[in-house]
Amino acid sequence: MTMLDAFRALVGSSFADGPSPLGRWLHGTLRAANEGTLTVEFVVRSEFLNPAGTLHGGVITAMLDDVMGATVYSLGLPHVYASVNISVDFLSSARPGDVVTVRSEVVRQGRTIINMRAELTRADGRLLARATSNLCRIGE
Amino acid sequence: MTMLDAFRALVGSSFADGPSPLGRWLHGTLRAANEGTLTVEFVVRSEFLNPAGTLHGGVITAMLDDVMGATVYSLGLPHVYASVNISVDFLSSARPGDVVTVRSEVVRQGRTIINMRAELTRADGRLLARATSNLCRIGE
Amino acid sequence: MTMLDAFRALVGSSFADGPSPLGRWLHGTLRAANEGTLTVEFVVRSEFLNPAGTLHGGVITAMLDDVMGATVYSLGLPHVYASVNISVDFLSSARPGDVVTVRSEVVRQGRTIINMRAELTRADGRLLARATSNLCRIGE
Amino acid sequence: MTMLDAFRALVGSSFADGPSPLGRWLHGTLRAANEGTLTVEFVVRSEFLNPAGTLHGGVITAMLDDVMGATVYSLGLPHVYASVNISVDFLSSARPGDVVTVRSEVVRQGRTIINMRAELTRADGRLLARATSNLCRIGE
Repeated sequence: MTMLDAFRALVGSSFADGPSPLGRWLHGTLRAANEGTLTVEFVVRSEFLNPAGTLHGGVITAMLDDVMGATVYSLGLPHVYASVNISVDFLSSARPGDVVTVRSEVVRQGRTIINMRAELTRADGRLLARATSNLCRIGE
Repeated sequence: MTMLDAFRALVGSSFADGPSPLGRWLHGTLRAANEGTLTVEFVVRSEFLNPAGTLHGGVITAMLDDVMGATVYSLGLPHVYASVNISVDFLSSARPGDVVTVRSEVVRQGRTIINMRAELTRADGRLLARATSNLCRIGE
Repeated sequence: MTMLDAFRALVGSSFADGPSPLGRWLHGTLRAANEGTLTVEFVVRSEFLNPAGTLHGGVITAMLDDVMGATVYSLGLPHVYASVNISVDFLSSARPGDVVTVRSEVVRQGRTIINMRAELTRADGRLLARATSNLCRIGE
Repeated sequence: MTMLDAFRALVGSSFADGPSPLGRWLHGTLRAANEGTLTVEFVVRSEFLNPAGTLHGGVITAMLDDVMGATVYSLGLPHVYASVNISVDFLSSARPGDVVTVRSEVVRQGRTIINMRAELTRADGRLLARATSNLCRIGE
């Protein structure tokens, strides 16, 4: 079974038992998995909020970053990758109880650097945030 | 009492009772407050980790973003500001129990846009991450 | 005649007589114009190169930034906008004589902030760079 | 003679004969060189302007990117590095004839990734732009 097969077997499951402690706290549900792209759904909880009572930019970024990191595994590469940087534009927000979805996509898979993008949307289709990230192969 | 006075009165206190639900979860302790700059200390907890067992980039970004947002309040402005974007470089990481510190700084305070930077360091002085963010005045 | 009409009348023309001195040096040719999106083609000249003899990242960014700035005008807004930030990922490069194309797109048009993205591709379809930028309304 | 010695021998010279064709067009003058940091001065020319008659964000980014790329050479490493990404905040601008100065600094020199920052200031000390960039080692 490849890593991608493993992801596909988890479609519909929550990340509550996943290998990422932060991912467990974010408590997403995998909705789709293909080579280089994942779709993960989250429900906005009260801990995720900023002082204005809307989804905190820090949590938005954590969702985007955690899913992009997981997406690398869907490629089934023999190496581990670490995030070099992330850049996020905040476009709108969400309220407690809203369902929000990250969709990630590998843009360029180089020998050393994987360039990725991800978007966070609300169930009504509104785009909440866009992210771009570079991940670098670790070790030899 | 100005907002800055209010921050100064909180030096040494945890954000466990603060107005940011995410900030309460991150559970920082305010160490210094001056106009346009805050210093906030965090203890790395198990929920903050990535699958490799080190501080997750998403939590790093959440710490940086939450402190930069709070820093705007230290300016005592009559308006509310929202994050337009954040850009983070990940340089190193931390382990459970490590004490890590965000230090934020307003770089340019314009009429509409506030440009800010922040750094996250470990107690041994190692730089873990650098962030830059722009915040925009909301409403009239 | 709206600004968009003016852009459309220029499709097929070079920017050699345009209002942006840098744009004149970059010497692009407008290939398509619609509300919130422009397509501009450039020919890689020897002045555009880095020490390795390929298209310099600084020129790539200048192309992306100049076209995104022009794209705001296609919206026909009564205000002037200035770039707040730009973030660029470099994915590949080009050689002298190559034809490269920027395609821009407004992602979110807010009251104060316009969020935009742009891509630079080579004639063979290879993606050379991706950019995201926020522009802010100037004055009252 | 090390690469750093070579840079130091060029302090006071213009980049008009340098190995970067774009750098020749930007026509900077090296003002200081130390391991991991360069200071380069530019005079704003009419070709560098945006439609508003001030220094174009694209040229600002080109100056920052070109100097950061050159700074890697000051480290005297046996490998070549390419820019992975650049992120720039635009804070103010300059007019034709103004002297503007880029000061670069290596923040973290890893085995694969070099993280760098640079600032552009005007002769009167005003900060015009801040950039951060990651460069990746090429080849084996």
